[in-house]
Amino acid sequence: MPAPTTPPTTAVIGAGISGLTSAKMLGDYGVPHTVFETSDRVGGNWAFGNPNGHSSAYRSLHIDTSKHRLSFKDFPMPDSYPDFPHHTQIKDYLDAYADAFGLRERIEFENGVQHAERLPDGGWEITDQAGATRRFDLLVVANGHHWDPRTAEFPGEFTGESIHSHHYIDPTEPLDFKKKRILVVGIGNSAADIAVELSSKSLQNEVTLSTRSSAWIVPKYMGGLPADKYFATIPQIPLHWQRWVLQKMQVMAGSNPELYGLPKPNHKFFEAHPTQSVELPLRLGSGDITPKVNVSRLDGSTVHFEDGTSGDFDIIVYATGYNITFPFFDEGFLSAPENHIRLFKRMFKPGLDDLVFMGFAQATPTLFPFVEAQARLLGAYAVGRYALPDPTEMERVIDADQQKFTGHVLDRPRHTQQLDYFVYEHDLRTQEIPAGLRRASA
Amino acid sequence: MPAPTTPPTTAVIGAGISGLTSAKMLGDYGVPHTVFETSDRVGGNWAFGNPNGHSSAYRSLHIDTSKHRLSFKDFPMPDSYPDFPHHTQIKDYLDAYADAFGLRERIEFENGVQHAERLPDGGWEITDQAGATRRFDLLVVANGHHWDPRTAEFPGEFTGESIHSHHYIDPTEPLDFKKKRILVVGIGNSAADIAVELSSKSLQNEVTLSTRSSAWIVPKYMGGLPADKYFATIPQIPLHWQRWVLQKMQVMAGSNPELYGLPKPNHKFFEAHPTQSVELPLRLGSGDITPKVNVSRLDGSTVHFEDGTSGDFDIIVYATGYNITFPFFDEGFLSAPENHIRLFKRMFKPGLDDLVFMGFAQATPTLFPFVEAQARLLGAYAVGRYALPDPTEMERVIDADQQKFTGHVLDRPRHTQQLDYFVYEHDLRTQEIPAGLRRASA
Repeated sequence: MPAPTTPPTTAVIGAGISGLTSAKMLGDYGVPHTVFETSDRVGGNWAFGNPNGHSSAYRSLHIDTSKHRLSFKDFPMPDSYPDFPHHTQIKDYLDAYADAFGLRERIEFENGVQHAERLPDGGWEITDQAGATRRFDLLVVANGHHWDPRTAEFPGEFTGESIHSHHYIDPTEPLDFKKKRILVVGIGNSAADIAVELSSKSLQNEVTLSTRSSAWIVPKYMGGLPADKYFATIPQIPLHWQRWVLQKMQVMAGSNPELYGLPKPNHKFFEAHPTQSVELPLRLGSGDITPKVNVSRLDGSTVHFEDGTSGDFDIIVYATGYNITFPFFDEGFLSAPENHIRLFKRMFKPGLDDLVFMGFAQATPTLFPFVEAQARLLGAYAVGRYALPDPTEMERVIDADQQKFTGHVLDRPRHTQQLDYFVYEHDLRTQEIPAGLRRASA
Repeated sequence: MPAPTTPPTTAVIGAGISGLTSAKMLGDYGVPHTVFETSDRVGGNWAFGNPNGHSSAYRSLHIDTSKHRLSFKDFPMPDSYPDFPHHTQIKDYLDAYADAFGLRERIEFENGVQHAERLPDGGWEITDQAGATRRFDLLVVANGHHWDPRTAEFPGEFTGESIHSHHYIDPTEPLDFKKKRILVVGIGNSAADIAVELSSKSLQNEVTLSTRSSAWIVPKYMGGLPADKYFATIPQIPLHWQRWVLQKMQVMAGSNPELYGLPKPNHKFFEAHPTQSVELPLRLGSGDITPKVNVSRLDGSTVHFEDGTSGDFDIIVYATGYNITFPFFDEGFLSAPENHIRLFKRMFKPGLDDLVFMGFAQATPTLFPFVEAQARLLGAYAVGRYALPDPTEMERVIDADQQKFTGHVLDRPRHTQQLDYFVYEHDLRTQEIPAGLRRASA
């Protein structure tokens, strides 16, 4: 996209946190834009019970990151909020953000993008849900990556009930989780939360947790302060040095899952998103949750595990993550097989300069300030204050960043998007945006 | 009681942990004894749903002490047990203990003591539930102190439902705790457990926790090990020095309740039984539980607090502790007003040498090894290998011990029985039993 003299007409797909921050920053730069949202409300994943089916929130969900790390830089969270807000409070916050900056005027609710076709000479033809067709100069993809359930594929067949954590609401919905033998597969935050909730002895369930890659477990509080107040990385120090220190320090936090009977992690501390749970170690140590290695085979109501043990279950809950899916693109045009998608700064696909991706990372500690940092670059890009490097250089940086952020991590769909926010934001602010500014004015 | 030539016939009231360890040790010393138990089973408080109404266990109850500290010295817990066993496992353990030492033969089930009358020349006339009367030389009171609910007395009247934690089973029993405004009064382990359980967002309750004296909060796990592995006191070092060190160290554990919005404790760290909860700080920090100071007044469905705030509630749960009650004694003979009872080594009432109390302390970390230590002294006493000092000396020691164990603690029913097991056991083993042996053989 050549440096525009007038700002590009811009289409934004989605009004979740990525779409909202994009719209806010585009508005700040005076970029005309339209946000297409399938739902009747903003908030995406954080709109519990979202009628568009794209929320994975369960009734008890609290965010895993404290409000101190979570707040947008330009819109602080209310002082009255607890350290770890409930999803209803996150939704209220996003509503207040949308209202404060007048974002709703530019959102077309219940009118998602049905199809996005790139025109031969650049620019986009957008077909909306209503069937109308419009042209835009720039397309911002902010449709999220926590809505299309990824299910583990095990040999054999399970004859009990199976659900994905995406559909889990509470111990009574969508299934009656009482007096049941339940297998939770996975060890991310959702797996931990759901296993803990269902293992409450008051429900009289028997809960087993099976994990393939295991995970380091970090508490939400340490010494009475939100733990993420301690765990900020320092961008000026190489990330692998900091990981080495954290690997030594994790002993204090009791993060090693082997302490509680879980398998040895297949990665070092903080190489992959750790699981934040105060309660999981306690429930394992109280015998309320039985830890297991990966599933090897399903057979009727029996599940066999890789250590040769087996158990009978009524319900399997697959808390096995999500696919990155772009249903509005022709699959041949662009997709993310096994969640792999090569993007410069997680935003730009080399060669397609009128397309920007927002929010496609598993950012540590959280997505909120990450998408806000991306939105600042988006705004600068849209008005021509930031210019991309050439595609060859972009490819080189993609490889270098990939090595930096996910170097030691096993190549699995859950981890392809691993990213350290502090390092990322520092790089954008001090290196990449100034460099892009120089390129733009060259 | 003069040093007996033949062992005294002995009646034991109760077949909970105190009665069982008493019976075991009396059996070891060849003392003829009969255990009177109102229920059809052993276990007392740990027999969930005990038909005699004396269990305060709720469905989700796990013991607050790790199995490493809990095990009787002469009957280790099974290796297969989790760090923090469930009440069903404690009950199984006590059943196995009773079976291993053949204790059931000496227990009269469903035949509690209706009345215990001290005879003018010493010895006891015991009237049992069946109405029969028998004489015994020695009476062992092991009827427990966690079964007679103590309710807070606030001015005014509450028109919603009120229950004591003693009767709490789970979120569906004895009341339907769903979509309710609930006030939990108290901050002991039961208060914390119940407030945490009922505040699960999946139940859609609004939970408030009110405390008068507040409490230091200690986790069940620290650095991946049961926290009580770190918190053993060292009997050779003065207790107030150790409390000073712990007071400095508690910062690491995030024990200060003020961090989470609770009132400032009215006592120093470890002067009173701390509340063991991993989840309470998290729920307070997640806004799921609202902390409040003490109740000042009840008025219909409204509860007023001492800070001038108020709230409307559907249910009050009084987790306000228990009375020490001896329903088998004439009240004029012996009682424990406001839970005060002056006992030498928490066992002997000066002047009554044919009466022994077992298990009447709030022992830190737990009652199990404490009652076992007491039972060793009981056995030695019953066969005359241990003799008491004279009543004046006993009164002096009672005062000194009271000062040692509860010196700084506010004089409140909950704290009258505070005791450090490690110091107590060390004193019995290295000082008191040898001294009593010398007195007996003098």
